[in-house]
Amino acid sequence: MSGDRLIYLPLGGAGEVGMNAYVYGYGPKGRERLILVDLGVTFPDMDGSPGVDLILPDIAWLEERKDRLEAIFITHAHEDHVGALGHLWARLGAPVFARDFTARIAARKMMEAGQPVEEIETVGLAPEAVSAGPFEVQFLPVSHSLPEASALVIDSPAGRVVHTGDFKLDLAPGVGEPFDEALFEGLGQKGVKVLVCDSTNVFSPHPGRSESSLPAAMQALIGQAPGMVVATTFASNVARLRTLAQAARECGRSVCLLGRAMQTMVRTATEAGLLHDFPPTISPEEAGDIPRENLMLIVTGSQGERRAASAQLARGNYMGLSLKEGDLFLFSSMTIPGNERGVLRIVNQLAERGIDVVDNTTGAYHVSGHANRPDLERMHELLRPRMVVPMHGEHRHLREHAKLAAARGCATAIAPNGTMLDLTGDAPQPAEQVETGRLYLDGGAIYGALDGVLRERIRMALNGLVLVTLLIDEEGEPLGDPWTDCQGLPKRGRSRRELAEAIEAELAGELGRTGPKVLADDDKLIEVIKRRVRQACVDEIGKKPEVVVVVSRLAD
Amino acid sequence: MSGDRLIYLPLGGAGEVGMNAYVYGYGPKGRERLILVDLGVTFPDMDGSPGVDLILPDIAWLEERKDRLEAIFITHAHEDHVGALGHLWARLGAPVFARDFTARIAARKMMEAGQPVEEIETVGLAPEAVSAGPFEVQFLPVSHSLPEASALVIDSPAGRVVHTGDFKLDLAPGVGEPFDEALFEGLGQKGVKVLVCDSTNVFSPHPGRSESSLPAAMQALIGQAPGMVVATTFASNVARLRTLAQAARECGRSVCLLGRAMQTMVRTATEAGLLHDFPPTISPEEAGDIPRENLMLIVTGSQGERRAASAQLARGNYMGLSLKEGDLFLFSSMTIPGNERGVLRIVNQLAERGIDVVDNTTGAYHVSGHANRPDLERMHELLRPRMVVPMHGEHRHLREHAKLAAARGCATAIAPNGTMLDLTGDAPQPAEQVETGRLYLDGGAIYGALDGVLRERIRMALNGLVLVTLLIDEEGEPLGDPWTDCQGLPKRGRSRRELAEAIEAELAGELGRTGPKVLADDDKLIEVIKRRVRQACVDEIGKKPEVVVVVSRLAD
Repeated sequence: MSGDRLIYLPLGGAGEVGMNAYVYGYGPKGRERLILVDLGVTFPDMDGSPGVDLILPDIAWLEERKDRLEAIFITHAHEDHVGALGHLWARLGAPVFARDFTARIAARKMMEAGQPVEEIETVGLAPEAVSAGPFEVQFLPVSHSLPEASALVIDSPAGRVVHTGDFKLDLAPGVGEPFDEALFEGLGQKGVKVLVCDSTNVFSPHPGRSESSLPAAMQALIGQAPGMVVATTFASNVARLRTLAQAARECGRSVCLLGRAMQTMVRTATEAGLLHDFPPTISPEEAGDIPRENLMLIVTGSQGERRAASAQLARGNYMGLSLKEGDLFLFSSMTIPGNERGVLRIVNQLAERGIDVVDNTTGAYHVSGHANRPDLERMHELLRPRMVVPMHGEHRHLREHAKLAAARGCATAIAPNGTMLDLTGDAPQPAEQVETGRLYLDGGAIYGALDGVLRERIRMALNGLVLVTLLIDEEGEPLGDPWTDCQGLPKRGRSRRELAEAIEAELAGELGRTGPKVLADDDKLIEVIKRRVRQACVDEIGKKPEVVVVVSRLAD
Repeated sequence: MSGDRLIYLPLGGAGEVGMNAYVYGYGPKGRERLILVDLGVTFPDMDGSPGVDLILPDIAWLEERKDRLEAIFITHAHEDHVGALGHLWARLGAPVFARDFTARIAARKMMEAGQPVEEIETVGLAPEAVSAGPFEVQFLPVSHSLPEASALVIDSPAGRVVHTGDFKLDLAPGVGEPFDEALFEGLGQKGVKVLVCDSTNVFSPHPGRSESSLPAAMQALIGQAPGMVVATTFASNVARLRTLAQAARECGRSVCLLGRAMQTMVRTATEAGLLHDFPPTISPEEAGDIPRENLMLIVTGSQGERRAASAQLARGNYMGLSLKEGDLFLFSSMTIPGNERGVLRIVNQLAERGIDVVDNTTGAYHVSGHANRPDLERMHELLRPRMVVPMHGEHRHLREHAKLAAARGCATAIAPNGTMLDLTGDAPQPAEQVETGRLYLDGGAIYGALDGVLRERIRMALNGLVLVTLLIDEEGEPLGDPWTDCQGLPKRGRSRRELAEAIEAELAGELGRTGPKVLADDDKLIEVIKRRVRQACVDEIGKKPEVVVVVSRLAD
């Protein structure tokens, strides 16, 4: 056994918030048996990934070693932990283990992607354990912002790792298990070698608040609202849906859930037996018949997503329901950095129509699902690990969390995606640097950054595009003038002529001066045309566009 | 005089934060003599305006009435108030009035755009007044986040308007005049008909803090920093530059200013005689020779701008200077909504290199330049206007500010861009709805939203582009197979063939089935080709691209 080692390798989720994918391995160097924890997505934006549907972790390293992969474990059902499973499972082909609620969502992902649902295996809480090669893995309940979030206890011959997943220390989370201090303290007493730990809220200085701190303020707000009340939050935050729905009922309002994800999550939670005390809800049709002061809608789209119920209600109506002056719209949520513009668009559309908007500025209507700084310290205290490896955070979070751990006397290391750590000894040792990256799911295709697809799209968006087609006749002479089509460019430039005409005139002149040697050489000819088009555009519109040239030669 | 009216018309800045442009008029309906207050820009983003340099207000309404325009007044030198002057002045052709510092910046804008600098006239503070048709206009000093910000007193035969510009109530702003309560109280006693008022911070519940609240915390922070300190803020916030530089000097550090805007602003403020107590600064070359613990850089790029000094330092170095582990980077600024991603990119790049980043989370290192809610109430109290018209804010800000004014018993109205108000009577009356919008400055061209340029760019970015060229011979038959070029699309699709080849094969088949009638009709032929390309792409990559078809017909 002396040559065996325990390794940790984040392929996603470390150095970013999103697309979590963490590999653990145990065995002889280069022949470790492997497990994967989580396989999530991150979301695209116009700046870096226009037109993309989802961003997935590049798991090429693991795919090349799939014969050594024993199992995949999913800690919880958030998209950034399970969203890539359907799209990438076929590349890995290992059994997937999760708790009931998570397994149901995972099975849905597999089904939608045409993958074998029976590869999903439902696991109970510890002490139930999954044997995966040299590893024994148990699920521990933690509180988070959706049901059945779990930490994993990962035992190997080299010792015990606790992988927290996403967690907070909520003693009254509403739905699901409260945080069980005694359980974690007990683990700590038995000895934990490595704590691999959520870092998201390391910059939040105050202890996190409980879901149970919300109902009073919500009831006060809803109780004094004269018209309809609409609240939005993440659909997967089933405890929040319950808190909101119960507050509405306390105020004598019927509750209607809107949005596809909302339906899915509530149905799944119900099927998993988690929603025994959820108030009855009504359909959108029934909601239309109820006086608005007796109605509360709970809707999707808290992040400003353009097609979700919130955005549609802000623009006009959704499922036949619409808001009007005097109604109240509550964001029971926080805005993820990068989504501010979309959220403010909705707020302003609502304001334009005289609807009062309340958000979480005061902290009264939302609590985070992640452990704040003092809560992280508490977790360190309970588990007393020899090493702490921060995960689930941007680089600034990982660094701050590592400083926190070091200040408490723990060995620690900052391991962003691609940094393999050797955890065999008493301190994490950087072992290897692995190529990682992002895959882009776009319609039915998946491609990587090196394919250049997004670079081309971004360039077209920034610079516009000029298409030039030119015919060369059997004698090698231009046949007629070149034809130009402009996309994403101003119609007219400085000369006041149409831009396409101005370019064509310049090109005709240029080709008149071009000798037979260049005319006979596609590459040279295309280069001459591109240069002339760019110069003509600089003259006309003060900017160089992208240029595509098609030269068609008539056969001799 | 009985038919004369006083009107207010925002062409930009009301219903958004940015591109301020407010028209006032007095005279017979439809023949009012006009003045314009401010002519600013707003900044583009990938979501809505890819490739654009600046966004300007569409002033077509005013341009069509330029014979009635008496003058342009600029309240202060921020880009969202003066940035469009050079680009749009020629369309208006009226004299421009501003105070010294603002006039210098305005003159620079005119010069850079090749416009006549002599149209800028420097005006002193009230009681100096500018006569502009039926209006008498005076500049009042207000505190803000740059020197010589001004409110305007606009007198007309129908009464007095106070247009606040951007302001806060700072009694010790460091550079420039403290807020002069007595001055505004005196105005209130003489009678103010209308207060047209900054709304930016109406949601900030606590009284605004003074620039003078910052030095102690800054000195504490800088004093305990072991390495180099870098601070970033808006270059135009000359008072902040002074606060930072003085704190550095107190801690025994030499100060170096980095970034083009920083140089411009400090030089302009010096020329305007505003910086008599600014500590001496050193050049980047000199900075390179000083021990890092004795150095403080004050740099541009607080909003994450990719080409500014902050971003360059985060990526590596700027002007030969670079940061390393143990250095400190201070954001003495707030992040404007929409800029979060760019700012976090810098923070994470710095964290990766072991540099400590401090931002304004605690409120200790930045104060806002806008009046908070209690400060707005104080302004209402001092001026005791009959009407309050909220400006300078998104719709949610205007609405909240109007509610605040109404609660205090003032007549008020929400007037977003394009809503003309009649202010002649005792309450603002909506008078007319005017077409407004945005103009996009892009290289040397200016175009509007209706030109479709940005729509084309965004579609290419979201969907990719397929270019098809087809030759039709003298007999009306396809000459060879169509040629396809793909931009911003995956190289291969489901069939594993190259996408272009797969499309070409489909097109060849389609054209083989296409009859002479369609082949003879460009529109129909192009439609057939587009449909087939889209279908082929749906089959191959699960998505419909943009398609451009060029049909070249050989002459008979």
